[in-house]
Amino acid sequence: MEKLSLNQITTKSWSLPEAVRGCAESGVEWIAFWRDKVAEVGVDEAARLVKDHGLRVSSLCRGGFFTGVTPDGSPVDGVADTRVAIDEAARLGAEVLVLVVGGIADNNLVRSRQLVADAVEELVPLALDRGVRLGLEPLHPMQCAERSVLSTLDQALAIAEPYPAEAVGVVVDEFHVWWDPRIEDLIAKAAGRIAGFHVCDQLVPLTDTLLGRALPGDGPIDHRRLRSCVEAAGYDGPIEVEVFNADLWARPGDEVLAETIQAYRTHVA
Amino acid sequence: MEKLSLNQITTKSWSLPEAVRGCAESGVEWIAFWRDKVAEVGVDEAARLVKDHGLRVSSLCRGGFFTGVTPDGSPVDGVADTRVAIDEAARLGAEVLVLVVGGIADNNLVRSRQLVADAVEELVPLALDRGVRLGLEPLHPMQCAERSVLSTLDQALAIAEPYPAEAVGVVVDEFHVWWDPRIEDLIAKAAGRIAGFHVCDQLVPLTDTLLGRALPGDGPIDHRRLRSCVEAAGYDGPIEVEVFNADLWARPGDEVLAETIQAYRTHVA
Repeated sequence: MEKLSLNQITTKSWSLPEAVRGCAESGVEWIAFWRDKVAEVGVDEAARLVKDHGLRVSSLCRGGFFTGVTPDGSPVDGVADTRVAIDEAARLGAEVLVLVVGGIADNNLVRSRQLVADAVEELVPLALDRGVRLGLEPLHPMQCAERSVLSTLDQALAIAEPYPAEAVGVVVDEFHVWWDPRIEDLIAKAAGRIAGFHVCDQLVPLTDTLLGRALPGDGPIDHRRLRSCVEAAGYDGPIEVEVFNADLWARPGDEVLAETIQAYRTHVA
Repeated sequence: MEKLSLNQITTKSWSLPEAVRGCAESGVEWIAFWRDKVAEVGVDEAARLVKDHGLRVSSLCRGGFFTGVTPDGSPVDGVADTRVAIDEAARLGAEVLVLVVGGIADNNLVRSRQLVADAVEELVPLALDRGVRLGLEPLHPMQCAERSVLSTLDQALAIAEPYPAEAVGVVVDEFHVWWDPRIEDLIAKAAGRIAGFHVCDQLVPLTDTLLGRALPGDGPIDHRRLRSCVEAAGYDGPIEVEVFNADLWARPGDEVLAETIQAYRTHVA
């Protein structure tokens, strides 16, 4: 249990204060925040709540969108927004700022990927200054066009490599990388760079590219195998359970958290 | 135009005789068949129609499902079914039998992959005997659980490598591999093994994991770049336009074929 972190998207019906209180009452020592939930109470109040309840913040979701477009096609200055997010992460005491790098701009995949590398270069000094680690998270290839031109772990490692490991790491999220035939080798290659390990399962059939996820144990992902790879690569930090699932989101947070803890114990720990 | 092949799934509203006639009348010299459409008229009649209209068959879709389950979870003897498909391909004069290898059985990804390698080993002698090339087609990672534990081109090459190139090749289908950061290198590595090149585009947003495809030009895929990679790797065979799209399927075949030819000329050739 001591490594379990509740990524608060899993208990989406809960406000931030409710999620913090829920974790504290259930013996969950870590929590991962989303910026929209933080904004509802303010950064300083969120930081105070975490401290008062004796929790630690595994990560803040999220910065990124460096290709200049959001998933619905609206323009965004991802670098400027991520500067703000780095500041928020520092104030929250979050160890990692998760980056969702952005989808394809102007139907140009090659240039979009370059924009991501350029943005990381630009943000590293601020990240080092604020003591926040940037977590490059490869997203599933089905999200390449809309959300993330960063699709595989070795691609993330190549972007991170020029910088100190404390400035830029990679986030291993099972949903996004479990299918990769090279995943064991790639996780081993990521030794020293792993900034987070996120677990969930994939629904079968997969009918929704974003919400087709489930609690660990309800799909084909071998969580213990992937956890052992991540640990063999030297990662001993928190393990976030992060589930995008409309049915789960519609249910009361306390029920969902109880099931999350049970699923973690049965299939991950 | 001389390399364009109509994969008949694109004009799904057409019967096989209609598709053959449509190609002949439009100057399309190649066609790719699906076994359900062949079965409606019989293998020998399909072969006669092709010959009478002066067409060539680029591929037959499909054998596979070696993990023993269909996408809807029903049991299937994929090896036995593929033996029949090899025979059909030979009688049709199809250069390639496309293989969709099957999804995950019993939630065991490692064993499912082994079943695929075992099945290919078992089928190679028959393929050589009948002069049919087995085409291992990596499918998009979002189809890993239900349709294909073969997800990347290098994974397909590793399975093909022990066998003669005329017995086992790999099929490069843009929809399935375009997102791969290593795709240029992997296509180069596939030199001598490329048994087919399938083109289409990806719809954005991607709302359907199977049908989220479009004619070339209606999405983010850079067809000329991928075609030049495939050609640089020595492939000079037919180029199939293969589109799974419910709107297209609902329309008259002659309209769809005309748009297919136009899209191919504008974005691929």
